[in-house]
Amino acid sequence: MAKRIINFNPGPAALPLPVLDEIREEFLNYRGTGMSILEISHRSKPFEETLNQAVERTRRLLNLGDEFHVVFVQGGASLQFCMIPMNFALEGNPIDYINTGTWSTKAIKEAKHLGKDVHVIASSEDKNFAYIPKTFHVDEDASYLHFTSNNTIKGTQWAEFPKSGPVPLVCDMSSDIMSRPFDPKPFGLIYAGAQKNIGPAGSAMVIIRKDMLQRVPEGIPSMLKYTTFAAENSLYNTPACFVIYTVSLVLKWLEETIGGLEKMETINKEKANILYGFIDRSGFYRGTTEKDSRSLMNVTFRLPTEELEAKFVGEALKAGLGGLKGHRSVGGCRASLYNAIGVNDVKSLVEFMADFQKKEG
Amino acid sequence: MAKRIINFNPGPAALPLPVLDEIREEFLNYRGTGMSILEISHRSKPFEETLNQAVERTRRLLNLGDEFHVVFVQGGASLQFCMIPMNFALEGNPIDYINTGTWSTKAIKEAKHLGKDVHVIASSEDKNFAYIPKTFHVDEDASYLHFTSNNTIKGTQWAEFPKSGPVPLVCDMSSDIMSRPFDPKPFGLIYAGAQKNIGPAGSAMVIIRKDMLQRVPEGIPSMLKYTTFAAENSLYNTPACFVIYTVSLVLKWLEETIGGLEKMETINKEKANILYGFIDRSGFYRGTTEKDSRSLMNVTFRLPTEELEAKFVGEALKAGLGGLKGHRSVGGCRASLYNAIGVNDVKSLVEFMADFQKKEG
Repeated sequence: MAKRIINFNPGPAALPLPVLDEIREEFLNYRGTGMSILEISHRSKPFEETLNQAVERTRRLLNLGDEFHVVFVQGGASLQFCMIPMNFALEGNPIDYINTGTWSTKAIKEAKHLGKDVHVIASSEDKNFAYIPKTFHVDEDASYLHFTSNNTIKGTQWAEFPKSGPVPLVCDMSSDIMSRPFDPKPFGLIYAGAQKNIGPAGSAMVIIRKDMLQRVPEGIPSMLKYTTFAAENSLYNTPACFVIYTVSLVLKWLEETIGGLEKMETINKEKANILYGFIDRSGFYRGTTEKDSRSLMNVTFRLPTEELEAKFVGEALKAGLGGLKGHRSVGGCRASLYNAIGVNDVKSLVEFMADFQKKEG
Repeated sequence: MAKRIINFNPGPAALPLPVLDEIREEFLNYRGTGMSILEISHRSKPFEETLNQAVERTRRLLNLGDEFHVVFVQGGASLQFCMIPMNFALEGNPIDYINTGTWSTKAIKEAKHLGKDVHVIASSEDKNFAYIPKTFHVDEDASYLHFTSNNTIKGTQWAEFPKSGPVPLVCDMSSDIMSRPFDPKPFGLIYAGAQKNIGPAGSAMVIIRKDMLQRVPEGIPSMLKYTTFAAENSLYNTPACFVIYTVSLVLKWLEETIGGLEKMETINKEKANILYGFIDRSGFYRGTTEKDSRSLMNVTFRLPTEELEAKFVGEALKAGLGGLKGHRSVGGCRASLYNAIGVNDVKSLVEFMADFQKKEG
């Protein structure tokens, strides 16, 4: 087997090697069932245990009280863009959105498409989304306030979450869930495509405050109602079993090997500091976002020319450092430092960057 | 590693062992990328190749012409129950349904819930769905005729598909897709949850005749529109990459090891004949469906008492034969003989059944 690379992909992204090893180890015979995890019934005891472990680990890691459901819904964050307004928009009340990039923009578009009364109360579009808005006024009667905690493409992140008083927060945490601890109480709903910090592609994790379920209207299809998923513990129909299984293993690694979200945050800060610090000192690489809005997860940067950027990405891959190309919509370079990327991986990247600068700078 | 069982699960179900071996073999390093298939970008060349292979193999195996799209949509067949009427119901025209069991019933419920004009033109509910209706009249102006080709729970299957003249057929083939060849031309849409005959849980395969896309109305959300999936080759957002990858390997096995759908059908008929033949001769076990409606995929049968059924299922599992319990809604026993189950697996089951009868009969 050829060597594995260090994988800075933005998502689907690197997973902890011990998790991959464990999957591989039990792939033909899942915990004594005589079947692969791919072959067991979603209604069997071994699978329900796995599902419940994923839920319970999520509860513990995020300090969720009994007032929250944790469910798994297929279709990625993109399906949530329409499900949330379908389920939670209150008749006659606006929905407040803060627009911080590509994914917020898509979420806004879907709510408008449904004919909802969308208020974009703040946006950083004026500077190509290079910062997180500091001032905004939340409508008192808003159904909820939607924001994106980390902007994978633009490389920004909310250091502290917006304050919305009694208005429930609704947050797309696809690219930074489980990267740091936070207070879940103000949140009416949190959603995250699994394929960045917690697993492979194929399911969103959706955390729903129970009181929000009272809003779910009758008229929408069963598979688009949060009440369906909450009432049936994600087992109304066959869920994305393999994704849920992998999530349960990633969360076990997070609890037992890393030691929880405080520890994970410390490591994530160290990783980001190493890389941003090097970029700022280099006089060759430059960050693309305002410093107080920088993402700890997705470090976006430019080189002096696009030619150098292409060369950088190509040579990095040859050196075993993959996934460093920026998103096709913005160009440049990006290193995604999700939980599975270690401090030493970032040091290897910085070493390569320094060498490249010496040669080309 | 303990011994693998023979897995007669109704879905998620047995997969071909060579496919599982291949996944395991390249699990840490997908085709020289230095990453797991779980970690590679859905927009990378290696993944797009895999996706396109799954699509092309489907085209070849099912003899689909250029007039069909093949896409992958998360949410299982259950999400299709609402997506199909949302996309394809013509204003002012009824939708015809034939009701042959649990899944048809659910599909009907979702269409009604959307306020569509649903005509159930035939049903076998009068005999607890133990047969496939022989006579029915398709509305000339129907938007489409929906039916379920194989009824996993009730153990019936359409030996020949219904004739609907110019009205497009729409078919839930979740539990018998790729089990036999058929003429795709009358079909406006075919859908199948992957987790029975073609892969693990977490995606439906949806085959769409291109002319049907003209019906898709503007007002529905992006992630619920077939045009979104067709226009973007299933890559509008991150798809269920691992499921698609596994499907591509299962279809490769079907083409290269089995030799295509004619050969697969011959094997499937042989398997079903062995088991039904034994049941009919036994004077102990008895089939639950009318003989001309029997499913080649899901063989449902009863024993003289429920106590014996429970004992049968328990002892079979001890003997390495799993998944033989009937669906919780109907009881009894069921052996699912999907493509990955071999002739010898069925012979082992019959041998066990004969021994059990000798002891208990």
